[in-house]
Amino acid sequence: MSLDRMTLRLQAGRDRRIKAGHPWAFSNEIVMTPAAKALPPGSVVRLEGDDGMKHGTFHFNPHSLIAARRLSTDPDAACDAGWYRARLGEALGLRDRLFDAPHYRLVHAEADGLPGLVIDRYGDVVALQANTAGMEAATPLIVEALTDLIAPRGIVARNDSAVRALEGLPEATSLLHGDAAGAVVEENGRRFPVDLLSGQKTGWFFDQREHRARVSRLAKGATVLDAFCHTGGFGIGCAVAGAAQVKLLDRSEHALATATEAAAMNGVADRVTTQRGEAMEALERLVGEGRRFDVVITDPPAFAKTRKDQPAALRAYGKLARLAATLTAPGGMLFIASCSHHVGLGDFADAVAWGTHRARREARILHMGGAGPDHPLHPMLPESQYLKGMLLHLP
Amino acid sequence: MSLDRMTLRLQAGRDRRIKAGHPWAFSNEIVMTPAAKALPPGSVVRLEGDDGMKHGTFHFNPHSLIAARRLSTDPDAACDAGWYRARLGEALGLRDRLFDAPHYRLVHAEADGLPGLVIDRYGDVVALQANTAGMEAATPLIVEALTDLIAPRGIVARNDSAVRALEGLPEATSLLHGDAAGAVVEENGRRFPVDLLSGQKTGWFFDQREHRARVSRLAKGATVLDAFCHTGGFGIGCAVAGAAQVKLLDRSEHALATATEAAAMNGVADRVTTQRGEAMEALERLVGEGRRFDVVITDPPAFAKTRKDQPAALRAYGKLARLAATLTAPGGMLFIASCSHHVGLGDFADAVAWGTHRARREARILHMGGAGPDHPLHPMLPESQYLKGMLLHLP
Repeated sequence: MSLDRMTLRLQAGRDRRIKAGHPWAFSNEIVMTPAAKALPPGSVVRLEGDDGMKHGTFHFNPHSLIAARRLSTDPDAACDAGWYRARLGEALGLRDRLFDAPHYRLVHAEADGLPGLVIDRYGDVVALQANTAGMEAATPLIVEALTDLIAPRGIVARNDSAVRALEGLPEATSLLHGDAAGAVVEENGRRFPVDLLSGQKTGWFFDQREHRARVSRLAKGATVLDAFCHTGGFGIGCAVAGAAQVKLLDRSEHALATATEAAAMNGVADRVTTQRGEAMEALERLVGEGRRFDVVITDPPAFAKTRKDQPAALRAYGKLARLAATLTAPGGMLFIASCSHHVGLGDFADAVAWGTHRARREARILHMGGAGPDHPLHPMLPESQYLKGMLLHLP
Repeated sequence: MSLDRMTLRLQAGRDRRIKAGHPWAFSNEIVMTPAAKALPPGSVVRLEGDDGMKHGTFHFNPHSLIAARRLSTDPDAACDAGWYRARLGEALGLRDRLFDAPHYRLVHAEADGLPGLVIDRYGDVVALQANTAGMEAATPLIVEALTDLIAPRGIVARNDSAVRALEGLPEATSLLHGDAAGAVVEENGRRFPVDLLSGQKTGWFFDQREHRARVSRLAKGATVLDAFCHTGGFGIGCAVAGAAQVKLLDRSEHALATATEAAAMNGVADRVTTQRGEAMEALERLVGEGRRFDVVITDPPAFAKTRKDQPAALRAYGKLARLAATLTAPGGMLFIASCSHHVGLGDFADAVAWGTHRARREARILHMGGAGPDHPLHPMLPESQYLKGMLLHLP
C-alpha cells in the first residue's frame, strides 16, 4: 500500500517513551525539518526512530507541544472512514457491554485509540469534541463512520473547549448533522434533558454516573443539599431514590431551569427546590443559619485551571470541605469531588481531611474513586485521571 | 467522674499530628517516665500535651512503636462494655445502611474509632481480630457488647495475624463463644462456606466485594480464569452471572475444596473446574499451551511483606500482568489486584502497564479502586488503603 503521508523522524535517543507504548511525541523530540514544519496541522504522518524503527501512524501538529499523537502502531493504517468506523465500533462494543442503555461517553480520546477525540452519546443524539487539529481535520470521516454505525438523529460539534487553543483551533459549537433538539440522557434509570447547543461542556457529565448511584443509594428518607448542582444529576437522583427533601444550588439560571424540568420529568418536583447563587457564599450563609442536611453533595467546577492555581485550589477545597462537613447532620454523608487536573488525589484527600477536622467532625472515608468505566485511562497516561470523588460518613 | 487511669504527656513540640486529628502517638513522642514504662501493655490512659491540652483517651503499649492509639477525644471516656456497645452500634448502623444482608466487615479498626480491632460478620457468626494489646485486653468487653447488640451464635478470635508480634502478642485462633460451625457468607447474592477456625485470615476477603460484582457483570457467556482464587469468590461469582466455563487456580487444597463446595452451593458445579498449583507457574504453563480466556482474574497474596520487598514485588506484579494479559483473549477483560501495603497505586499501575505492553497488548484501564465501603479509611491514615484493583479491557 502506498499512502500519501510523510515519515518524520524522532531525534536520536528520544524514542524510549514511544517504544514503551506512550501515545505522544513532543515537538522537541521530533526532527523538525522545514518540510515537517510546513505540514498542515492535523496531517497524518508516520514516525520512525533514529534507528529506523517504525512507530506507527500519528496525527501531527507542528505548532503544538504535543506534536504527534499515535493513531495506530501500524505505519500504514488507512485512517479513512472505514478505519474510524472500526475504532468507533470497538469503543461502541465496549460501552454496550458496560451499560444497558445507549447513554455514555462513547469515545474517551487516547484511551480509546482516538487521541484528542471525545464523543458523548445520548441515545440517538451525539456530541463530539475534536481537541486536536488532527481530529478537527478528520471530523467529516468521523461523522460518516458514526452515521454508518448508529445513524444518529443529530450530531453536534461541541468544539468550545479551552484546550483547542493549544492546537490553534477556535472555540465554536455547531450542528454537524440532523437535529439535536429535545435530547434526553438516561442514567441509573433517571432522565434529564440535555441542551447540547448551549449547555455546559458536552451537556452532561457522564463521569459521575457511578458516584451518583452510590450517593443516591444512601439518600432514602434523607434531606439532601446538592451544591454546584448543574442540572441536578446528584440531587434529583437522590430524590428518585426516596430522599425526603432536596435542595439544589447553582449559579446558573439555565442549569437550574433544566434541573427543574428534570425534577418534573422524574416525578419528584414536589420534593426538589432550587436556589440560585454562588455556591460557596450560599454554603456560608446556610452554615450561619445553623442548617443541617443528612446528605451533602459538592461537585464544583475545577478550582485549579493551571498548575500554579494548585495551592489556592487546595485551600478552596479545604474550605469547601469545612463548610460542607459543618452542614452535614450527625451520622450523615458527605460527597465531595474535584475535577481539577492539577490537583492529585493525595493532596485533595489531605485538603478534605483538614476541612472536616476544622469542622470538628470525625470522618470515615467510605469511598475514593474516579470517573466511570466509559472514561477509560490509557495505561501510559495515568495523569489523565482528572476526577476524584470522596464519600465520607460523619458520625 | 474519677477513672483509674494514668495521664501521660507528649514531649514538647510533638503534639502537632495528634492536634490535627491523627489517631496515633509514637513512643518517641511520649515522655516515658518509669511509671509509664511500667504500665501493662494495653492500659487505657489519658494523653495531654506539654501545654496541658487534653488529647483524649488512648490504648497504650510501652513496648510498641505506635505507643498510643486514640479511643476517644474525651479524656474521661468510660471504655467499658457500654462504651464498646455504642461504638459497635455506630459501626453496625453504618453497615446496615450500606448493605442488604448482615455480611460485612463490621469494624475496620481506626476508621471505625476502634484502633487495632477488626470484626467480620457472617450473619450469625462473627470473627474478631485484636491487633493491639489494648484490644486484646478489651476482648471480654467487646464480646459482651457484641452479644448485647447482635447475639451471635458464634464468636471466633482470629488472632493469627503477623502484626500482633509488634505488640508482643502471640498468634492463635480460638472459639470465644458458642459455635462457629457451618458458617456461610452471602455476597452479591452468592453464598460461600467459610471456615473460620482454619481458613486463611478471617475466612473471607470482604474487601473485594465491589470488584467481584464489577467483574462478574462482564462475564456472561465468557470463559474465565481465576488465578489465586482462594475459595472462588471471583470465579464462582462469574459462573453465577452466566460465565460459560470457569477455571479456578490455587495452591491450597483446602481453599479449592471449599471452592468446590461453593460451586455446588450456587448451582454452578457443572461450569467450574479447579486446578491445584503455584499460580505463577501454572499461568506460565497455560501461556505455553497458547490458552486464552475471555476474563482473567489474578488476586494474589501480598508480594511485598515489607518495604524492602518493594522492587521485587513490582517486578512480580509486572510479570503477573504480562502472563495474565497474554492469557486474555482479544477483546477480553483482565482484573489484577495487589494487597501489598508497601506498593502504592501509582507504582502498581506502572508495573501493570509495563506487563501489558510486554505482552504486546493495548490496554484500557476501565477501573482503579480500593476496598469496599465496609473498609473505611481514617482521613489521617490514607496509607491504610492497602487494596488496589485494576480492571482492564484488552482490545
